Amino acid sequence: MTPDPLDQLDPTLGRRRFLQVSAAGAFLCTIGSERVAVARRGDAAKADAAAARIARPKARAAAAEPTESQTYVTPQPQPGGQKVEYWIQATTARWTIVPTKRDDWHGVAQPGGSTFTAVVYQQMTEGFAAAFGPAAMPGPTLHAEVGDTLVVHFRNNLGDLKQAVTMHPHGVKYNPEYDGVYLGDYTRAGGFIAPGEEFTYTWECVPESVGAWPYHDHGPNHTLNTFRGMFGSLVIRPKGEAVPIFEKSLFLHQLQPPVTGLKRSYQCINGRAFAGNTPTIRVKVGQEVALHVFGMDNNFHDFHIHGHRWKDASGAFVDTPTVGPNETTSVRFVEDNPGRWLYHCHVFSHQDAGMAGWYLVEQ
Amino acid sequence: MTPDPLDQLDPTLGRRRFLQVSAAGAFLCTIGSERVAVARRGDAAKADAAAARIARPKARAAAAEPTESQTYVTPQPQPGGQKVEYWIQATTARWTIVPTKRDDWHGVAQPGGSTFTAVVYQQMTEGFAAAFGPAAMPGPTLHAEVGDTLVVHFRNNLGDLKQAVTMHPHGVKYNPEYDGVYLGDYTRAGGFIAPGEEFTYTWECVPESVGAWPYHDHGPNHTLNTFRGMFGSLVIRPKGEAVPIFEKSLFLHQLQPPVTGLKRSYQCINGRAFAGNTPTIRVKVGQEVALHVFGMDNNFHDFHIHGHRWKDASGAFVDTPTVGPNETTSVRFVEDNPGRWLYHCHVFSHQDAGMAGWYLVEQ
Amino acid sequence: MTPDPLDQLDPTLGRRRFLQVSAAGAFLCTIGSERVAVARRGDAAKADAAAARIARPKARAAAAEPTESQTYVTPQPQPGGQKVEYWIQATTARWTIVPTKRDDWHGVAQPGGSTFTAVVYQQMTEGFAAAFGPAAMPGPTLHAEVGDTLVVHFRNNLGDLKQAVTMHPHGVKYNPEYDGVYLGDYTRAGGFIAPGEEFTYTWECVPESVGAWPYHDHGPNHTLNTFRGMFGSLVIRPKGEAVPIFEKSLFLHQLQPPVTGLKRSYQCINGRAFAGNTPTIRVKVGQEVALHVFGMDNNFHDFHIHGHRWKDASGAFVDTPTVGPNETTSVRFVEDNPGRWLYHCHVFSHQDAGMAGWYLVEQ
Repeated sequence: MTPDPLDQLDPTLGRRRFLQVSAAGAFLCTIGSERVAVARRGDAAKADAAAARIARPKARAAAAEPTESQTYVTPQPQPGGQKVEYWIQATTARWTIVPTKRDDWHGVAQPGGSTFTAVVYQQMTEGFAAAFGPAAMPGPTLHAEVGDTLVVHFRNNLGDLKQAVTMHPHGVKYNPEYDGVYLGDYTRAGGFIAPGEEFTYTWECVPESVGAWPYHDHGPNHTLNTFRGMFGSLVIRPKGEAVPIFEKSLFLHQLQPPVTGLKRSYQCINGRAFAGNTPTIRVKVGQEVALHVFGMDNNFHDFHIHGHRWKDASGAFVDTPTVGPNETTSVRFVEDNPGRWLYHCHVFSHQDAGMAGWYLVEQ
Repeated sequence: MTPDPLDQLDPTLGRRRFLQVSAAGAFLCTIGSERVAVARRGDAAKADAAAARIARPKARAAAAEPTESQTYVTPQPQPGGQKVEYWIQATTARWTIVPTKRDDWHGVAQPGGSTFTAVVYQQMTEGFAAAFGPAAMPGPTLHAEVGDTLVVHFRNNLGDLKQAVTMHPHGVKYNPEYDGVYLGDYTRAGGFIAPGEEFTYTWECVPESVGAWPYHDHGPNHTLNTFRGMFGSLVIRPKGEAVPIFEKSLFLHQLQPPVTGLKRSYQCINGRAFAGNTPTIRVKVGQEVALHVFGMDNNFHDFHIHGHRWKDASGAFVDTPTVGPNETTSVRFVEDNPGRWLYHCHVFSHQDAGMAGWYLVEQ
Repeated sequence: MTPDPLDQLDPTLGRRRFLQVSAAGAFLCTIGSERVAVARRGDAAKADAAAARIARPKARAAAAEPTESQTYVTPQPQPGGQKVEYWIQATTARWTIVPTKRDDWHGVAQPGGSTFTAVVYQQMTEGFAAAFGPAAMPGPTLHAEVGDTLVVHFRNNLGDLKQAVTMHPHGVKYNPEYDGVYLGDYTRAGGFIAPGEEFTYTWECVPESVGAWPYHDHGPNHTLNTFRGMFGSLVIRPKGEAVPIFEKSLFLHQLQPPVTGLKRSYQCINGRAFAGNTPTIRVKVGQEVALHVFGMDNNFHDFHIHGHRWKDASGAFVDTPTVGPNETTSVRFVEDNPGRWLYHCHVFSHQDAGMAGWYLVEQ
């Protein structure tokens, strides 16, 4: 195994240079009453311990604030719409960032150990009867149409981590019961799902929900949990709209030593780093393609596909749009350019540290 | 008082970890002939001393550059427009970042000392007769319509700081006399308002000025002064357009130890950190809402309101748009979702360090 | 010569403060089979040595991947279009970042040595007969219309650096032969132009190519080479569209000690820092103006011109739009505001470290 060059620096400068290069990996969490700096390997356990100490918020007496005494009704589908149900559990998963141990773009080995304990959303069959597939990063993409309700049966299956988690969606409409956010004393039922508990979220797909949106943990330990894999996407379409032949959600995010406990920093797409590990996209000339790209860390990114350009929401042609944390940029075109292409974040340091993949087009 | 976890680290790693987490707080200023690194507590005084050494630029002889011999006429309102006058002074103010000593989102104390000497724009009554209200961060929101001139009588009331300041607006039209920028030897009258002096800016509201824009100091010490509170907003409407029932300007910015002299870093909205201190927005279902969101530091941000989404300028629905330094993103919708909601920057580290607030909707 | 304040700090804190301020200058390169941290002066030579060790990729046997056995035809102009030819070579050039040794905005000396060995694209006359002008940063702006092909005869004239380079364009259409990207074992002819070699790229100007786009090195050492000057722009117009009276490409990027070997960090526009060194733009009232602004480093920027505002692609008026790495934001208006104006990146630290220039408008 080739040692990482950052581990081989001379004793005086080594650590400092590492700090320079990896500084973006440090972050500060507010977890209930505690502030935890997650800045080096081992700190994640401190954040988990803080999260485990948070008691379930007490039901708040109807207070001076009118918003606390308001009551909310579970929404129903619009006429012609349907209830689209999912069963999803939060679970830990041993996750390997570079399963091929290779960077297929540069044609070289990336041998180091890249397996850590991720926390992810896993799709289950009806009634949580069985896993729909292996636990993976990102969580399942949830699909619905305008007029539908998305009904997500959510279970916290994080035994060892002993902390409450949630699902907080973007884009859809929901009342405060289904916001999926820990708010201290103002927390409602959907904002604190303790280990072993279940909760059913009901979200409305309104006309303004059309598009692709992220979901992620927004419980007491949301920053660390999101950074280690608790995210996925929603795709809401106008009623009856055809599904593109190829559609995929791509999350741009880092997996850094303070989060993973690993020695190396990785710049990832969907939890994987380096071409051949990140999603390899395979399409054919003439197919409709839709890629939904999300920022999912503390950084800003921009997204480029070689050989392609597309209209942004304003109608301008672009090939490298900026995307911020939990923002979406959608790429849509009819494929017209056969070949082996690279897609990547255009922040050069991200691209070089793994945030790139293959986009393959057959004639 | 709970010590900050960053101050409790072991002696070897403590300082380094602090650097990692707070590195964004360091910046380099060019102040006249001096370069000052503002990187730790105490450095702001060096920048102030450098600013105090800057002499008023000499009137420049009509030079080879044609632009220097051009003369400019003070603009008048368009037919039907009016002269909208404000009286504003630059002043220091003891400012408390966390007045409740509490983070109401997490339901926990935030006890540390958070008071420092800010520099702000304070609205005065006509002729500077009296303060319109307490000096606060941000400065007043200036309102006008297309066809009007905004006439701002500005006074530098910074006795102790002994440095020239200005008001530089975005979005409106102005000639070089009213640019409010220090340009060394090319400085015009409005670009160097020394302590005790007054200057009247006249800015035109042209059709392309419609929108919300920031203003800020652009004198010799503009970076430090903007970072410690010298900013506010302009809202320019088409002639006769109705004012939204609820409208507010929100500035996303950090207040860091090198600027404040405090021990802790804060990620702020309008000079305050943590829900219950940042603006609590209170609206009712059916009301028109307009929020104007500005980046006001060295960082990029993105802005999210739980339970809501809105059309951006391109017509796409968004709920977490990116906003850069001195850029504006405006949020407009008719309120339709009652409840207690969180609004926040979606850079996770900013959110956890205070850049979040309550958005309360009554039925 | 005035010493840089960052070099005069006390021994204990000096280096740390420098790291804080300059951390953005460090980056990690993947160069073939090696990872090189470019974090301090001298590291660039290590990246160059790694790049020099990369052998020409072997022609890949038609593999399991259908994309590898596909063949591609060199595109021809559309009916009515033409073949627009350029001759361009990669070359080193001694480049001075602050030739006036002065910051004309602040009216002060910027005396330090600011000359380093840049690597740039230099335009040559037909058949590489002679230099079209001195080697400069950025490379030439390439112009074409929809329906044309851009035919770029490219030569690697980097004798001493002993490494392959390429030209990778954005916005135009090309098949994999003309992508100009090193892809390890999947590299095609245009992705590895060794010293002394020539290659002719053919790129199609399709209707969706209208706009301004960057080009840059995408060979094995692309990050370092792009950061030291291997970039330029393409401007593609609808057929027959009039050229604006004033049009210019502006690249926002840093030149940092790890790249330049210099003592100081510079925030640059087109390879130059500080007003009077960065491009001075000279226009007249009534002229059509088009500025194409590109991010060309690891950072995000936003672009402001005093006294002006313009429509973005969505039709909204802006004066400080965000622009990411290799993204483009175009500024277009009819000049209506005479005077001496400042244009700059609105990230305050970038502005103060040189990313600003003069915009001069005659009546």
